[in-house]
Amino acid sequence: MRTPENIKDFSKLCIHTQTNRPWDLRRCVEEYHRAGVAGISVWRHLLEDITPREADRILKDHGMDVVSLVRGGFFTSVERARRELAIEDNLMAIEQAATIGAPLLVLVCGSDPGQSLEVSRDQIREGILKILPAAESEGVKLAIEPLHPMYAADRSAISTLSQANDMAEEINSVFLGVAVDVYHLWWDPLLQQEIGRCGEMGKLFAYHVCDWNVPLNDILNDRGLMGDGCIDLGQIRGWMEDAGFEGYREVEVFSDKYWAMDQVKYLDRIKRAYLEHS
Amino acid sequence: MRTPENIKDFSKLCIHTQTNRPWDLRRCVEEYHRAGVAGISVWRHLLEDITPREADRILKDHGMDVVSLVRGGFFTSVERARRELAIEDNLMAIEQAATIGAPLLVLVCGSDPGQSLEVSRDQIREGILKILPAAESEGVKLAIEPLHPMYAADRSAISTLSQANDMAEEINSVFLGVAVDVYHLWWDPLLQQEIGRCGEMGKLFAYHVCDWNVPLNDILNDRGLMGDGCIDLGQIRGWMEDAGFEGYREVEVFSDKYWAMDQVKYLDRIKRAYLEHS
Repeated sequence: MRTPENIKDFSKLCIHTQTNRPWDLRRCVEEYHRAGVAGISVWRHLLEDITPREADRILKDHGMDVVSLVRGGFFTSVERARRELAIEDNLMAIEQAATIGAPLLVLVCGSDPGQSLEVSRDQIREGILKILPAAESEGVKLAIEPLHPMYAADRSAISTLSQANDMAEEINSVFLGVAVDVYHLWWDPLLQQEIGRCGEMGKLFAYHVCDWNVPLNDILNDRGLMGDGCIDLGQIRGWMEDAGFEGYREVEVFSDKYWAMDQVKYLDRIKRAYLEHS
Repeated sequence: MRTPENIKDFSKLCIHTQTNRPWDLRRCVEEYHRAGVAGISVWRHLLEDITPREADRILKDHGMDVVSLVRGGFFTSVERARRELAIEDNLMAIEQAATIGAPLLVLVCGSDPGQSLEVSRDQIREGILKILPAAESEGVKLAIEPLHPMYAADRSAISTLSQANDMAEEINSVFLGVAVDVYHLWWDPLLQQEIGRCGEMGKLFAYHVCDWNVPLNDILNDRGLMGDGCIDLGQIRGWMEDAGFEGYREVEVFSDKYWAMDQVKYLDRIKRAYLEHS
């Protein structure tokens, strides 16, 4: 049974531009707009061929609601020079976010296999503290996104919601919170509890959805669309809502399979998956 | 600097036959024996072309110390008939373990993407309870091996040492403990604490070593040899010893790269990696 057209509600649907990787920013905006999708999270590399000001105009002209800029972070390195570059890059990201009207910068915090996870976490903490003043003065919030433990060696030394909550609690700024991504966290037996804790702290800043394919064919680019895999999205959404989250459900799917599809048809499929499974 | 020959100590080195996958059981035993390695963990498929009694003779004739039989478990399924088959298969594995003198059966507990992790865990608990009497009467211990969260959907609904400890504590049999594998657990911020807890319960039954390659090219068969990757094996070994563990360090490496090598040369490399990095 298809839901009747008139009760379809896309008001909480946001799409990450990377979900439609073949498209540039203008194309994403035009297509999302045509499809009745107002929420967009913008990936930074799309701002390389266009000024943030032009990007802002395109977004505003189509009435888009910019949910976040993705992604800052990567604070970790065995080399001091690279850590300093990361700070500069994050400051630039905060500026870009402010220019395109993104209220949030998502942080993939980084990890370096050449040092311990503890050292990486110290560098993450230090990095966040260094960029927080700029975030506060620009009015851009920061969200720590814990990544799946399979990325612990080289992408994020923060692997669980519990760790992200701990760090956000310790740093204790209203400008620092957490992004919950079902792909990274679905397996965690403490997920419900930590979502509740994060909500109580007022730090549930973003909610990313997709699905976990079985079997998993690629460690990076084999994410499923909601309904393709084994994640109980209804259950996790319930936990988010119980914790007071009222924001967008952001579709963030990296998938060689879907990137090879006609993206207009794929967008229709995203909308259906959103309604039926998210 | 090479360590002088006369102080090389391989008395705690055990190798999983799957590490040398190209070899059958006889070849593994002969080569390990020639190399001065007495510890062996036997993978069950090697018992398909040989009777357990013949296997036992080969192992005894070469003075091998059988550390474990690998692997039982896989208790989970949406289908009752498959769960019942799993029980039968585990009972057979316990019998095989007893016949070849293996004091331990390692359990990869299973997961089924068609049901929730909670239901899978209930089935695991139920399965263990069903096979425990046979394990006790045969004198074969069982070890729950938590698997990395990237296998949560289809291989193990038990992803952390904390969960394995909880289940072993709850079932509360001296015949049920835990296998710690660095590949699955190295990223966990609670690892030291949970190793200590497991030791206090007297349930540290096995210790598996290898390394985590960066980048990881394959979700199953791209494990590193100790020293290849980013795991701080010295630190984890220290935690194991502090917790009272005095058993073997079992080398368990699934690697398309190493399986393609001359296995005799590879065995030499395993011994070197064991001495220098485990």
